[in-house]
Order: sequence, then structure tokens, then C-alpha cells
Amino acid sequence: MNVFIIGLGLIGGSLALDIRREFKQAQLFGIDTNEEHVSQALELGIIDSAASMDDLNKATIVIVSVPVDISIRVCQQVLDMVNDHALVLDVGSTKEAICDALASHPKRRNFLATHPIAGTEFSGPKAALEHLYQGKTNIICEVEKTAFKLQERALEVFAKIGMRIRYMDAKSHDKHIAYVSHLSHISSFMLGKTVIEKEKNERDIFDMAGSGFASTVRLAKSSPAMWAPIFKQNKGNVLETLEEYIQNLQQFRELMLRDDFEEIFREMENTNHIKQILNGILQEA
Amino acid sequence: MNVFIIGLGLIGGSLALDIRREFKQAQLFGIDTNEEHVSQALELGIIDSAASMDDLNKATIVIVSVPVDISIRVCQQVLDMVNDHALVLDVGSTKEAICDALASHPKRRNFLATHPIAGTEFSGPKAALEHLYQGKTNIICEVEKTAFKLQERALEVFAKIGMRIRYMDAKSHDKHIAYVSHLSHISSFMLGKTVIEKEKNERDIFDMAGSGFASTVRLAKSSPAMWAPIFKQNKGNVLETLEEYIQNLQQFRELMLRDDFEEIFREMENTNHIKQILNGILQEA
Repeated sequence: MNVFIIGLGLIGGSLALDIRREFKQAQLFGIDTNEEHVSQALELGIIDSAASMDDLNKATIVIVSVPVDISIRVCQQVLDMVNDHALVLDVGSTKEAICDALASHPKRRNFLATHPIAGTEFSGPKAALEHLYQGKTNIICEVEKTAFKLQERALEVFAKIGMRIRYMDAKSHDKHIAYVSHLSHISSFMLGKTVIEKEKNERDIFDMAGSGFASTVRLAKSSPAMWAPIFKQNKGNVLETLEEYIQNLQQFRELMLRDDFEEIFREMENTNHIKQILNGILQEA
Repeated sequence: MNVFIIGLGLIGGSLALDIRREFKQAQLFGIDTNEEHVSQALELGIIDSAASMDDLNKATIVIVSVPVDISIRVCQQVLDMVNDHALVLDVGSTKEAICDALASHPKRRNFLATHPIAGTEFSGPKAALEHLYQGKTNIICEVEKTAFKLQERALEVFAKIGMRIRYMDAKSHDKHIAYVSHLSHISSFMLGKTVIEKEKNERDIFDMAGSGFASTVRLAKSSPAMWAPIFKQNKGNVLETLEEYIQNLQQFRELMLRDDFEEIFREMENTNHIKQILNGILQEA
């Protein structure tokens, strides 16, 4: 089984580590425009060999794990080059644009649109973690458009690395993921920005920051190269969530301005039941 | 050494556990208006005996760990009742109001205003954790107003439980803590609210939430009884941070509306250096 990973970062690298463990016979090939990432992936044992796009005709599985803007073009190229029995999957955080772009590709049935919901705020091959996907959810979109045998091949990989599968149409995926993932990144980046701007001349103030601040601002360490294209591709949904979030913050502000701390208490109490909702979601990746 | 803990929650309970470990001769007394918390604290070995305010004349140290609105009244009462050699300290997240309220108390020199920056999103005696304060920062305000011998007594306790001490005036404390703690709680509560409101009819959508969402929304599990009074007491500073935060979010929204994803990239890149700033802050309490 020849597995090609295109994009040797956190997501692709972690998949490679789990596939190596679960499929002893797998040969892992890596492709990345960043030469340093290729060397690191070789050193870290993430891949067996560096490869190029010309080698793709011998691929059994190709995993495309690059930023979502580049992914569309890369997936098209990959589909052009693979043999008729290869499985090509992307792992991006937006699904509508890529599904639309590949809809009429002659090898559409070789492609599976997936979104393994796992990660950390770090990036690059050094951020790759074994067991990152254990117990996590993988959203598969437009499954009916993928050849049945290739669906089976993908499901075997995901089952062995411990993922739960959920099927969803691409439009719904992008709408809901804006709320439970993309908005969190904006709230965190802007929180980081607000505090850094204010405290730029008083760096030792950060000694006062506790674990609560660290937790809310953690995602502000995320890669702009990954996230700017996500916001761009999911613009409509992200703007909707962002506007609702700003509205809620403004309402909170107005409650404070008119000293209605009883209503603020009730608001917080109502939101407290996020405890139950979050049961089962791991605190840390 | 008779140590009284008034308010047997996460903060007071955790202090009691560490004091018991480090001071073998300490007798720990607990006072709480919540009878169930008193029973739990006895069962969990957090305190040796339940006590009442009438017992305070035999106290060596009194730790007042109740919500900041109640704390002012309780500290006044405690100072009225303790002997001349007792140390009374509060541990609240706002310092100006309590320092002002106690400024002219005849036993002001028995009082030390502290803010141990540690905690989790949970509350009550069952949330108490040993070693919660290890390596964390404790802000002490208006230290010069406390009797020197009582300062020494407090510092011995804080040193033994592993805290770093920083001195600050109460006004500066409240200003900076609004940025690095209070604002995080609002951003998290409103993020939780936004997502719950939107997804209330589609609860299984939360299966899509990953560790990133869990991390940014963690503080939305915090106790409203603790946080509403903090926002009230620190209203001016909190409003200032909230307004700046809303402004930054609005600016982000405008960049998205005019498709300026290059500027969005740069904004995120600039904020990324929060990585360095956060070095040394523990991810989890």
C-alpha cells in the first residue's frame, strides 16, 4: 500500500504516524513545497521517502493536507495524475468549495471529502502527534459521489486510527463548523490582539495571566497560512457567526452600562449548561 | 496555628489542602453559609471542624474566599472579631473596592489584600485541588498597610505552597487583570451563548466541536455567583477592555467584508507572537 501525504504538517504528519503504526506494510511518501519540512518528516520517521507529483501514478491513497485555498488546485492535479484505483482525500476545514470545484472532474469517484476534527495550535511536521485522531470525529461529505470500494478503503483507515464517522452535506458542514470552530479562532485571535495592543509597554503584566487566559487565547497561536484561506472560503457563514457574536458582546456591554448585573448573572447561568454539551469533548487535543 | 477558611469553594478549599500538607500543626476551621459545602469539606478532609464567626477570636489566620461583593462585608465583620495578632486575608479578583472599604478600619493592619491567580472553571469544595497554587503568581496590594509581622506570616504560607509574589497597587491590579482575566471570561461566555443559541435545535452538531472550541469556551462553565460581582466591582476597567475587544472584532469583520484577506493574514501573524508571551503560563490550571 503506497500512501502519499501532500503537505507534511500537523494534520498530514499525524495521519502518517497513525497509518504507519496500523498498516505495517504501508510505504509512506511525502510531498511538500517546503524542503525543510520534507527533511524533518524524514528525520522524524513520518515518511519513508520524499516524492514528487510525478510519482503519484503508483499511489494507493493520497492524502492532501495543505491550506484550503491550495488544496483545490492540488486535488485537481492529483486526480489528473493518479491511477483509476487510487483513493484521494482532502482533510480541509471547509468542504463546499472543494466539493464544487471537483464536482465534474472525470475522476470525481476517486475523491473523498473529509474533515477530521482534531488538531492543536501548532504546525509543521514537528507538531505531528501519534493518536491525535483517537476518539475524534471525522465528517465525510458527499459520500455517495465516491466509489464504494474507495469509501471502504478510507473507512478502514479511519476505523483503525480510532475515528468516529459522521456523514453530512458540504453546505451544512460549512455552516455548523463556522460556529463550533471558525468563530473560536477569531474570538481567540482578537482577544490576543486586544491584550497585546493594550499591554505592549508593560510586558511583565502577562505574569498576571493565568490558565484561563491561556486557554481562551490558545488558538491565537494558530497558523495564518491555514486560517486566512478558511475564513475566505467560508466567508458567508463566518460573517454570520461573527455578527451574532458581536451582537451578544454589545448586549453584554449594555447590560453592564445600565448596571443590570442580575440579568448578567442569568445570562451566565443559562450559558453554564455548555458543561453538559461539552461532556465528551476532550479539553485538549 | 488556627486557620479559618470562610468560603469553602475551589479557592479556599485548595488553600486549606495545601496549608494542611505544609503546616502539620495547623488546625483548620471552616465557615460557610452553605451547609452542604461544610459537610463536603469535612468529608473530604479539607477542614478539621466546622466553626462559626463567634470562634474567630482564636484565629491565627483567616482566609476570606467568598464572592467579591460578599467579601467586603465579611472582611469587615472578621476584622471586628479577630484578636490583635490575627492575619486576615482576602483572595478576590478585584482589589480596589475592598482596599477602599477597609482603608479606615481600626484593624486595617491585620488585613492583607491578595489575589492568588489560579483556578479552574469548577466550583465548590469538590473542585478543591492540592498543589493548585504551585508556580502560580500571587498579587499583593497595599502591602505597606499590613503589619510587618503579619506580612511575614502570609509570605511564609505563600512560599510553602509554591507561589511567586508580585506587589502592585490596587488600581493597577484591577486595570490589568481586566485584560488578562476578566475579558477572557466575557469572550468565553458570549462565545458559548452564540453557539448555544444558534444550535439549540441541533444538539448533535456539538459532535463537530473539537478541542479548540472546548478550550475557548471552557470559562463559560464558571460560576455566575463569583463572576457577576467581579464584573460589577471592576465595571470601568472591564467596559474599557470589552469596548476595545468589540472594536477589534468589528475591524476584523470589515476586513472580511471587503475581502482583504492579506490584512487578515498579517493581523493573525502579528498576534501569533502571543506564543512567546505565553511561555511560562501553564495551559491548564
